[in-house]
Amino acid sequence: MQWAKVLGGLVGAAALLGLGIIVGHFAIPKVSDALASQDLDQKLLETVLGQLDASRIRDNLRELSRKPHLATTARDEELVQLLLQRWRDPESGLDSAQASQYEVLLSFPGREQPNRVDVVDPTGKVQFSCRQSEEDLTGEQGDPDVVPPYAAYSPPGTPQGLLVYANRGTEADFKELQSRGIALQNTIALTRYGGAGRGAKAVNAAKFGVAGVLVYTDPADINDGRSWPNETFPHSWGLPPSGVERGSYYEYFGDPLTPYLPAKPSSFRLDAATGFPPIPTQPIGFEDAKLLLCQLQGPLAPAAWQGALGCDYKLGPGFQAGGKFTNDRGEAGGAEPFLHPSLPSQVKVSVHNRQELRNSSNVLGIIRGAVEPDRYVLYGNHRDSWVHGAVDPSSGTAVLLELSRVLGTLLKKGEVVPSPGRGPYLPPGLTSACPFPSSWASCATSSLHCPAPARAKLRAQRSILFASWGAEEFGLIGSTEFTEEFFSKLQERAVAYINVDISVFANATLRAQGTPPVQSVIFSAAKQIPAPGTSHLSIYDNWIRHFNRSSSVYGLVPSLGSLGAGSDYAPFVHFLGISSMDIAYTYDRSKTSARIYPTYHTAFDTFDYVDKFLDPGFGSHQAVARTAGSVTLRLSDSLFLPLNVSDYRETLRSFLQAAQQELGALLEQQGISLAPLVAAIENEQGQRGSGRLTSTAGCKLVVGCRLQGDQRAVTSSPLQVRMLNDQLMLLERAFLNSRAFPEERYYRPPQPRQWGGAFVLSDKKELNLSPASHVLWAPRTGSTATFPGLANACARAKDTGSGPAEWAEVQRQLSIVVAALEGAAATLKPVADL
Amino acid sequence: MQWAKVLGGLVGAAALLGLGIIVGHFAIPKVSDALASQDLDQKLLETVLGQLDASRIRDNLRELSRKPHLATTARDEELVQLLLQRWRDPESGLDSAQASQYEVLLSFPGREQPNRVDVVDPTGKVQFSCRQSEEDLTGEQGDPDVVPPYAAYSPPGTPQGLLVYANRGTEADFKELQSRGIALQNTIALTRYGGAGRGAKAVNAAKFGVAGVLVYTDPADINDGRSWPNETFPHSWGLPPSGVERGSYYEYFGDPLTPYLPAKPSSFRLDAATGFPPIPTQPIGFEDAKLLLCQLQGPLAPAAWQGALGCDYKLGPGFQAGGKFTNDRGEAGGAEPFLHPSLPSQVKVSVHNRQELRNSSNVLGIIRGAVEPDRYVLYGNHRDSWVHGAVDPSSGTAVLLELSRVLGTLLKKGEVVPSPGRGPYLPPGLTSACPFPSSWASCATSSLHCPAPARAKLRAQRSILFASWGAEEFGLIGSTEFTEEFFSKLQERAVAYINVDISVFANATLRAQGTPPVQSVIFSAAKQIPAPGTSHLSIYDNWIRHFNRSSSVYGLVPSLGSLGAGSDYAPFVHFLGISSMDIAYTYDRSKTSARIYPTYHTAFDTFDYVDKFLDPGFGSHQAVARTAGSVTLRLSDSLFLPLNVSDYRETLRSFLQAAQQELGALLEQQGISLAPLVAAIENEQGQRGSGRLTSTAGCKLVVGCRLQGDQRAVTSSPLQVRMLNDQLMLLERAFLNSRAFPEERYYRPPQPRQWGGAFVLSDKKELNLSPASHVLWAPRTGSTATFPGLANACARAKDTGSGPAEWAEVQRQLSIVVAALEGAAATLKPVADL
Repeated sequence: MQWAKVLGGLVGAAALLGLGIIVGHFAIPKVSDALASQDLDQKLLETVLGQLDASRIRDNLRELSRKPHLATTARDEELVQLLLQRWRDPESGLDSAQASQYEVLLSFPGREQPNRVDVVDPTGKVQFSCRQSEEDLTGEQGDPDVVPPYAAYSPPGTPQGLLVYANRGTEADFKELQSRGIALQNTIALTRYGGAGRGAKAVNAAKFGVAGVLVYTDPADINDGRSWPNETFPHSWGLPPSGVERGSYYEYFGDPLTPYLPAKPSSFRLDAATGFPPIPTQPIGFEDAKLLLCQLQGPLAPAAWQGALGCDYKLGPGFQAGGKFTNDRGEAGGAEPFLHPSLPSQVKVSVHNRQELRNSSNVLGIIRGAVEPDRYVLYGNHRDSWVHGAVDPSSGTAVLLELSRVLGTLLKKGEVVPSPGRGPYLPPGLTSACPFPSSWASCATSSLHCPAPARAKLRAQRSILFASWGAEEFGLIGSTEFTEEFFSKLQERAVAYINVDISVFANATLRAQGTPPVQSVIFSAAKQIPAPGTSHLSIYDNWIRHFNRSSSVYGLVPSLGSLGAGSDYAPFVHFLGISSMDIAYTYDRSKTSARIYPTYHTAFDTFDYVDKFLDPGFGSHQAVARTAGSVTLRLSDSLFLPLNVSDYRETLRSFLQAAQQELGALLEQQGISLAPLVAAIENEQGQRGSGRLTSTAGCKLVVGCRLQGDQRAVTSSPLQVRMLNDQLMLLERAFLNSRAFPEERYYRPPQPRQWGGAFVLSDKKELNLSPASHVLWAPRTGSTATFPGLANACARAKDTGSGPAEWAEVQRQLSIVVAALEGAAATLKPVADL
Repeated sequence: MQWAKVLGGLVGAAALLGLGIIVGHFAIPKVSDALASQDLDQKLLETVLGQLDASRIRDNLRELSRKPHLATTARDEELVQLLLQRWRDPESGLDSAQASQYEVLLSFPGREQPNRVDVVDPTGKVQFSCRQSEEDLTGEQGDPDVVPPYAAYSPPGTPQGLLVYANRGTEADFKELQSRGIALQNTIALTRYGGAGRGAKAVNAAKFGVAGVLVYTDPADINDGRSWPNETFPHSWGLPPSGVERGSYYEYFGDPLTPYLPAKPSSFRLDAATGFPPIPTQPIGFEDAKLLLCQLQGPLAPAAWQGALGCDYKLGPGFQAGGKFTNDRGEAGGAEPFLHPSLPSQVKVSVHNRQELRNSSNVLGIIRGAVEPDRYVLYGNHRDSWVHGAVDPSSGTAVLLELSRVLGTLLKKGEVVPSPGRGPYLPPGLTSACPFPSSWASCATSSLHCPAPARAKLRAQRSILFASWGAEEFGLIGSTEFTEEFFSKLQERAVAYINVDISVFANATLRAQGTPPVQSVIFSAAKQIPAPGTSHLSIYDNWIRHFNRSSSVYGLVPSLGSLGAGSDYAPFVHFLGISSMDIAYTYDRSKTSARIYPTYHTAFDTFDYVDKFLDPGFGSHQAVARTAGSVTLRLSDSLFLPLNVSDYRETLRSFLQAAQQELGALLEQQGISLAPLVAAIENEQGQRGSGRLTSTAGCKLVVGCRLQGDQRAVTSSPLQVRMLNDQLMLLERAFLNSRAFPEERYYRPPQPRQWGGAFVLSDKKELNLSPASHVLWAPRTGSTATFPGLANACARAKDTGSGPAEWAEVQRQLSIVVAALEGAAATLKPVADL
């Protein structure tokens, strides 16, 4: 049975416990609890999946993306009210809903003084100016509420200097320039998105004396090389030449002024935050970038640095003689050569950003659990966009609103409402318009033979908490402040966090990232739902065609990506240790190599873009709604939490293998043994003299240990279930160690595109830094997927100039991960074992 | 009803929930659970209290204190086996028991080269030597296993210099000497115990250039002034002149080399630990101290510095002319005056301590809970002593063994075993030898009219975990390593920690310390048990006569002390946020001002000392066993956890009042408002514009908020009880903030002897430092009971030379405590409220 294999240890545990429950039932006088021992209500699940309606998602998206709704603007607050109204609707609302505000530090471009990028000749005369806004191609880009392109949190300033081309702005890129003798002092570096995080480009540049940074999106990276207006939106999904990716250049997450504290008005605020770019930075479109880059003089850039702008990329510094930005004598200078015979034209970057304390709202809504209201399944997405944000984030919010409407309607009406005119929802393998089981909701309009929808369960066993986060685009701010405010409550009670930010990058396949225990529940959900655009494939079957890996336990399975810090799941997993996931539909990688959907963070990310190019018919949106909805219900209504903790075993073994291969020899030289780590991960029987576990049935995390309720105990079943579920729910917490990375915030490199042997998508944001406490998922400085604290410490110790203190830190990190693994294993043992 | 008042909010909550349960019972088809909805089994409780046997405690104590059992010595390991044997006994053992070891850094005096304190003349000739061991008064002090007096963790060294008298060795004491013109450089400072912690005396001394420190116990502080052999043990409970208090001079807790990590053999260890005394230190008896101190020259010491050695205490430096340590010319010099006409005699301190990694064992035993095996009521004491340790710690271990025997016997035999020949246990107010209720166990031998003992419940609802910690005397090492190893498991599941270290300091009254929520359960227990040595008083009634305070909620009540870091409760409360308490019998303060029982940490702390002077008949031991046993059972068997969380209100209000009085004006000058703190503590209605709580029934910690199960939920009762109990159990966790005091370890001043308006005993150890995370109970540098982070930050900011950074830290600390209070309050709201 594939099913049994997928659920792995957990099913075994459930079966054992089920047996115990049956025994207990007959051994104890009249122990029964109709509600509390019910498993996942399939009828409820089917009803919900059947009700999730593509055209309503489309309607939601149209409304959500009607106007730009940058964080804390009037339209953002209008959407707060829209969410409240929906979640308080008497017909389809939740049990309760409310908004809460935080006072947070945001960054905006100057209103009176727009940011500018100019080519100036030696007299200071402007020879050329980059666009200050995107071209109005659909009538939406001219909306006065469109924020001009800018690099949020870039410092203001007006640096001017010769232009150099610095590829992706990594430290290696600047070193390459330096090694080729390119003088970088006081230059302006033109860089392209990707490879290094937004803020990191400026951080790296500043180390080499660069005075300002420009960032553009190369057509090679986003448009599969296409760059002409007639090849791009509105003629295709491609990024138009004038499109500019906005973004936050802040390197951490959460409100910059109140780390670890909720940003209440009275909260302590730092005088000066850290993590902002050190030098003025401004993004531009590739139309402008082409004009600058193709005019550069100097040596030819390396092959890997070349892009698709239709010219040879040179390194600079400065513009070539005889080009567009040359003076009369053919020098790359200004109009008055006799005054400045040898001075070439320069680029002047004028950034007038200002930082402001603004009130940003989260909106929260809850459906109280019928049995365990104090167990929260969290489902969230951010609400704020850069411009209209049809894809980012409204494609996720449109799904969120549809899922909450279906659950809310069930709650308020207690029965299934047929949706006439909507196409039927067909599970894989079924082609009848009136499928079994009979309670499925959305039969075709004419299906008079369909049985009347049955009355469905009002609510799941556990509470479902919906969240619409504010100010995510500036650095996951709303979600982070929420976790800082309710740290204790969430850490005690949160079952899992489900994030659906961009729900549809493209309409080819499911893509999911998560901590290992959520793999099985996503698989279960994906197997039950038909893939859009296919006839008989399930989402799972379609997924495995696109992204797969060979699992030592399960054979070929879809590959689940690991979570970085690219969206609001980050504070939940890194700060609170809550099992988390991110779900979306995405690209066919055989058809595009775009680093993200092309209009990302531009004024072209509009409703029509989605409706015409990304997901016509909204079948992929519906597929994501069904997948995420199924996962939500499974987590909130299954008797045993569908968190397969034994799926950590493959991850830990792969981390260990990578550590042994990459670090083993180095550590051995230093007399540092990985044996304790091996022992913590593999069975310790015989490997250690006398440990606390050897005298009991040693139950370690990765040796196929089966969770067991304490079978000797004579107790009631609901409590026994709760006890086992507490073990499942809290495992992830055991990997937190707030002292592991004291006061340190790491650079997060781009996500490696290989994970577990399979190709996975990178985070949508390519760099983030996190105040991480999770000893397995904290950011790594290297590209190998292994224990981050150990790998980072090794990397530092290997550096020249390192000494005993750095090697001691390696040993400390090794002990930290061993202690976390052993502490986690201890939580999985039978609860009354010593 | 006094009862109702004492239980406060919790009883209300229980009643409400009980109602809900009844409603739920009839609303839901057949929801019942005979076991899981049972409340505290009174019969079980009475049986246990009746069985706790004074003479068995006496037998335990005799065996435990038969030989010295310093941590990790052979006898210490023998006691590990004794505990294992008792806890695995087929007739009276627990469900399981095991020992676990940690490899920890201890400190011992040199074996070949004993530590010495000598008076040497200018030629280096020894004029006088202090005793190297205590006088063998009872045949036990000569045991070869008696460790010679030493200051554990004092560095080795042989400083020599003029003697000065420095009172208690506080920083103020050394400043006083300095202000009087006493040259301190290279002197040896003679100090007396008390006032500053052991290690702090050397830390303070070193700042003034002192080269070595001697510490003695003044008869004024320990013997109510008595100092002659015939007035002291074995003629009274007084400390004999040769008695020396040993002790750990380490300033933190836990294994010094593995902070925050369990001290497994493979764990990372620091190269050099911190927190040890900076200069050689040695304790001596007052017999020797008198010889030195009464010979000092120099100005008369202040009146407050005078003691009871029968001479005027002078300050030095050096010995007086014409005294015992003078040369022939009457100078305080050596035997060869012509060579060193002006050189006086000096004191030479020779310390040859060495540090060793040793294996120290904890012993753990468990009685699995019948209903919630994953909820642990922890009961512990350390096992290691300095010498025979009859009082410290064996008086506690003797009680531990008796309590575990009674519970174990019940477990193994499932019925009450009458104890013929033991006196009956009479609850207050009953004088019959055959008391009601009929199941009471220990009727008098001849009471044939007593009904047969009824079969009692086998086990309580929750698990009871017994612990015998190793190496406490060196710095709470065994318990700390345990909390470091099982951090996650304990933080998730521990209900409370009960510490009974020294169970009987003296036989006058109960003395208890704890976090506020444990007050009510200790009161409940104490009201039900007769006080030894009284005819009709309960322990509670007797207690209130000795230590009481006026509570704004309850009127006059016994005063519960706050927990410092003086015994093994420290890691549980400070590091894990577990509700904790320490229980003992203690002095009549109208009869003695001894700072602790006089033979504390000496070779005179023997069985006969206890049997003859401290608790003849062991009635006080039995009273502590009954009180702690009752508390243990109440916590493990009550349907609703008897943790009255609303009792935090008085503490928080008193902290707030103190902050306002002591810091308010200062903060106002700096523009820092305490208003957010007031709002967090008092009702916030109307005080804040719009908060997350205002739209719901605002439930704040101190406004008499009643915990409620979510009454709308239709669910089963055992789960509903569990949910509420989780709120009660986890409240204390919400006050932890591991980032509140980053990498800082504070000095802990002597516990203030006043708390909550009432006199309470200080910790048995007067100085400790802790790696604290608890924002309410972290150590304070000042003496006022208020928010420690705020007070400490204010103290630093007030210092000269402080600047904006120090005031920013004050604001940060204010926000930290506000966030913790609000986060804690959020955990008390109905669980499905937003």
